[in-house]
Amino acid sequence: MQQNRQQQPAAAKAPREAAAQQPAAALVPAAEDAAHAPQEQPHRRPRRPRQKREPAKPPIHIAFLGGLNEVGKNMTLFECQGDMFLLDCGMAFPDDDMLGIDLVLPDFTYVEKNADRIKGIVLTHGHEDHIGALPYLLKKVNLPLYGTPLTLGLVKGKLKEHGLLNKVKMNVVNPGDTIRFGCIGVEMIHVNHSIPDAVGVAIHSPAGTIVHTGDFKIDCTPVWGEMIDLGRFAQLGKEGVLALMADSTNAERPGFTKTEKMIANSFESMFRRAENKRIIVASFASNISRVQQIVDCAVKYGRKVALSGRSMVNVMSIGVEMGYLHVPEGVLIDIDLIKKYPKDKIVLITTGSQGEPMSALSRMAFADHRKVEVGPDDFIIISARPIPGNEKSVGNVIDELMKRGCEVEYGSMYEVHVSGHACQEELKLMQGIVKPKYFIPVHGEQKMLHQHARLAYSMGKRPQDVCIANIGDVIELSEDHMKRLPGAVPAGNVLVDGLGVGDVGSIVLRDRKHLAEDGLIVVVCTISSEDGHVVSGPDVVSRGFVYVRESENLIDDAKDLVFSVLEQCADNGIHDWGTLKTSIKDSLSHLLYDRTRRSPMILPIIMEV
Amino acid sequence: MQQNRQQQPAAAKAPREAAAQQPAAALVPAAEDAAHAPQEQPHRRPRRPRQKREPAKPPIHIAFLGGLNEVGKNMTLFECQGDMFLLDCGMAFPDDDMLGIDLVLPDFTYVEKNADRIKGIVLTHGHEDHIGALPYLLKKVNLPLYGTPLTLGLVKGKLKEHGLLNKVKMNVVNPGDTIRFGCIGVEMIHVNHSIPDAVGVAIHSPAGTIVHTGDFKIDCTPVWGEMIDLGRFAQLGKEGVLALMADSTNAERPGFTKTEKMIANSFESMFRRAENKRIIVASFASNISRVQQIVDCAVKYGRKVALSGRSMVNVMSIGVEMGYLHVPEGVLIDIDLIKKYPKDKIVLITTGSQGEPMSALSRMAFADHRKVEVGPDDFIIISARPIPGNEKSVGNVIDELMKRGCEVEYGSMYEVHVSGHACQEELKLMQGIVKPKYFIPVHGEQKMLHQHARLAYSMGKRPQDVCIANIGDVIELSEDHMKRLPGAVPAGNVLVDGLGVGDVGSIVLRDRKHLAEDGLIVVVCTISSEDGHVVSGPDVVSRGFVYVRESENLIDDAKDLVFSVLEQCADNGIHDWGTLKTSIKDSLSHLLYDRTRRSPMILPIIMEV
Repeated sequence: MQQNRQQQPAAAKAPREAAAQQPAAALVPAAEDAAHAPQEQPHRRPRRPRQKREPAKPPIHIAFLGGLNEVGKNMTLFECQGDMFLLDCGMAFPDDDMLGIDLVLPDFTYVEKNADRIKGIVLTHGHEDHIGALPYLLKKVNLPLYGTPLTLGLVKGKLKEHGLLNKVKMNVVNPGDTIRFGCIGVEMIHVNHSIPDAVGVAIHSPAGTIVHTGDFKIDCTPVWGEMIDLGRFAQLGKEGVLALMADSTNAERPGFTKTEKMIANSFESMFRRAENKRIIVASFASNISRVQQIVDCAVKYGRKVALSGRSMVNVMSIGVEMGYLHVPEGVLIDIDLIKKYPKDKIVLITTGSQGEPMSALSRMAFADHRKVEVGPDDFIIISARPIPGNEKSVGNVIDELMKRGCEVEYGSMYEVHVSGHACQEELKLMQGIVKPKYFIPVHGEQKMLHQHARLAYSMGKRPQDVCIANIGDVIELSEDHMKRLPGAVPAGNVLVDGLGVGDVGSIVLRDRKHLAEDGLIVVVCTISSEDGHVVSGPDVVSRGFVYVRESENLIDDAKDLVFSVLEQCADNGIHDWGTLKTSIKDSLSHLLYDRTRRSPMILPIIMEV
Repeated sequence: MQQNRQQQPAAAKAPREAAAQQPAAALVPAAEDAAHAPQEQPHRRPRRPRQKREPAKPPIHIAFLGGLNEVGKNMTLFECQGDMFLLDCGMAFPDDDMLGIDLVLPDFTYVEKNADRIKGIVLTHGHEDHIGALPYLLKKVNLPLYGTPLTLGLVKGKLKEHGLLNKVKMNVVNPGDTIRFGCIGVEMIHVNHSIPDAVGVAIHSPAGTIVHTGDFKIDCTPVWGEMIDLGRFAQLGKEGVLALMADSTNAERPGFTKTEKMIANSFESMFRRAENKRIIVASFASNISRVQQIVDCAVKYGRKVALSGRSMVNVMSIGVEMGYLHVPEGVLIDIDLIKKYPKDKIVLITTGSQGEPMSALSRMAFADHRKVEVGPDDFIIISARPIPGNEKSVGNVIDELMKRGCEVEYGSMYEVHVSGHACQEELKLMQGIVKPKYFIPVHGEQKMLHQHARLAYSMGKRPQDVCIANIGDVIELSEDHMKRLPGAVPAGNVLVDGLGVGDVGSIVLRDRKHLAEDGLIVVVCTISSEDGHVVSGPDVVSRGFVYVRESENLIDDAKDLVFSVLEQCADNGIHDWGTLKTSIKDSLSHLLYDRTRRSPMILPIIMEV
């Protein structure tokens, strides 16, 4: 720990209220730990004779409402002796099979049910997967928010959009501060991540201390702020930690995540190579440190900076306003002005690094951007790694840009991106200094949680002291056990499609999938209300099934078939509409499958006159 | 080259017919090249005084029908002095936006148009992206096939399925052989790839020699057969090569692709770790060498081998039958028998390494496999890398397997896979020994072709001597120029959906996409043929739009709106059906967008009585 002392972040100045207020029994400094206690602690606590275990210590409950077995939607409810608080309230992006869905929220049922016992929401940082579901929750349950200045700055913009701005109480807290929720104290601990002002937390409760890293990496030379407060994590480890919950995003990746600062060198050499071309950099809108480095490089090479993409403009204006992004006077220009400057005097920073179809970069690639036209005079840098599932769309955007003659830098040729999450060596280091009794990997798909658990085993943890949980699980932790409580709380995906929240579910999605794969046949027919015989029709309308012109015979045969089915039913005195519709569906789907090997959705519509 | 002499493959034994038959002018051995000629050539050709350039040399034309700016669908037409032949005839897998499509074929229009001038189809190896479109082409144009034994063995199975087996002439050729198509000689050259019996070709024509690598890698210790015949490529380089066309699949990856043999060590250590568990390995069905190594390992550790997945069973039975896969008597057992053996005596080799939803491994993961149930007693190895676009579905399969308690090895933890394609150092090596005048990167998306071109520039090629072409382009090559001919030939995607070939196009796909994203509203109404007033209805049926139960008001409002629109039209004497339908669509889509921010497809159906 000593080599970090000079880097001790500002956070350390704040009083360790929580620790001080803890019941003494929660701190259990073992004799051998005390011997290695950090030297900056001038007065060692006097050794107390070991007490017998106090049997009455209450347990703490952790209900996972999101973020396990999935990426995104991070939301966890903690409860001890009836006091509750939420950690984060994130959204997720829809999977490929969630056709037409805009975003995914956690299920708020359990939160609504316990609304009167929940004292607040603590936010670890300002990424969508940690704050994105807030407006939707706050419309149902009004709870006070606690977060660092930038995090709340970003939340503010979000609440404004949803007309919630002055209805929610927002409390700015800083690393080192402790928030009190009844018997629970939540201490904020500075960490490094791909957005400034990120924190982990130490949850001090009568049951013991739980450390949650939030999203983190170890960056000894961060672009913004101090190095992660490893000192505090280690100190907590010395004092005794009941459980560690840690970010599993990069648990599959060996090694150590590189420092954000390394990007500067790559950018410098690319800026030199770009020479007389316009430079366009695509990056995550929230990565203020990345943008800072691009701005610094632009200043050095005498280029103006313009921003493209709504979220990029939003976040950067918040960043500048709040002092997280430093741009010298006159460097930032409006995108409308870029044509007034020579190409080699411009850097354009844009969204779209994930190949999102409607993003600024995609629109440039497909010549659909109102203000920017790209070509051989453009040097484009994709400063991000494709999130799993986006590889293909990112590849398509790169292909299109290259077809227009742009030079494109991406992937491994230059170091155009570093991750914001800890890799295996950092994860082990965190476990090693926090020394928790129990380990719960969080934030990640099953395979990431598994690899993270493997790291714990490799450091000597016993399988029974590691818990791979699922959303909906409630874990009970106390000094002598960690167990999953029977019965799960409601947790799952609430889908947002346009203005609808939760009105699209599995049946609607199943229909969309069916329509997507084989299209639709609507059969309309009017029958007589007297004898059931066909009065007019049947008519067949198809969409997404087949070119009608090439399949006139098939459509005619379908009409003939439906006609004969209906007439036969009429002859046999069958008038029940359910039976009629089923007969049409069955016979028609046979015909179509036989002739095309496809199974379009069949919608029989019968009218009676 | 000398260090490779011991490894000179069997191919070298065959007479170099093509070279011998070449007009002397095509060989132009420059004085400085002759000085470095390989020593195994005992009698140097006597130096001839340099001749003046013969101006009458005819050009050769290359028409790209597939495989450029895309992965898959490899198919190229060569023509010199009216003689034509096709190289490969592959299919591609559909992109995500090709909803419901099974596979993608090249456009055969240009081939059909020139059917009488095309002398045959040369196949480089038996992968789907090189032979998969054959049955569809051969149904239209009957052409003789030329390929190595395994390649034709795999084609045979394909033709049988399509009822074409005895209708097509198949000619077995081996490395070293030269096929004559009029003035063109096509020489087969042994290469390494992820399937045995792969070849590159040297196309000897009056215009000069063109070398096409096919899919290749350099494997100095291949599991099957000899090392790639670098000696022959180098010899061609010495003799003078007009153009090199080379595989760009891995052009973005630095370094050298590892030898297939390396896999054996990884498998050994995993087999040891698996101990008393059943081992399940997912791999590409066509990778016979991979399966050979798994079988060898199974034999060593006393396990029986069973196969799962139709293509795995098919390819391996061809492999065994033709002598490409060696399995000791009694090792291979039927999948129905695996339950008769203890788990630690079984290795199951299965398809599904790409997470394909209907594959054997996916079905195991989602507990939907009729014969195999997986759980904590299974040790599963995913011996493949996800093809771009498949990362997410592969991840899902791994997650599900882990949730069932399986141990899963994948990705970088062990070396579970090596590529079958050359990386940057190999690609440069190939360029360095073939020393072509012109360079044409093939097989890959734009970004891969670009990176491959960059490698050529880094080796000193001038941009004007490198051609990044597109499908549909026809390139003319001769000793003094390489140019794109004006006008493109038909080339694109012909979509196969069920039995339909080409009957699903952009309109149908656009409809499917629309239906997939927002679903469908069908409005049915019967109006009077006399005055146009509503007789019955309107009725509204929705699919994939919204839960009807939650939106009864919306549906009722929609009905009311359509009713009033129709009545208004009737009052105003508007009877034109086009106008009626447009009015319904417009007013309804406004209502729905206003209330839901969604735009479902609206199908108004009006009946008249």
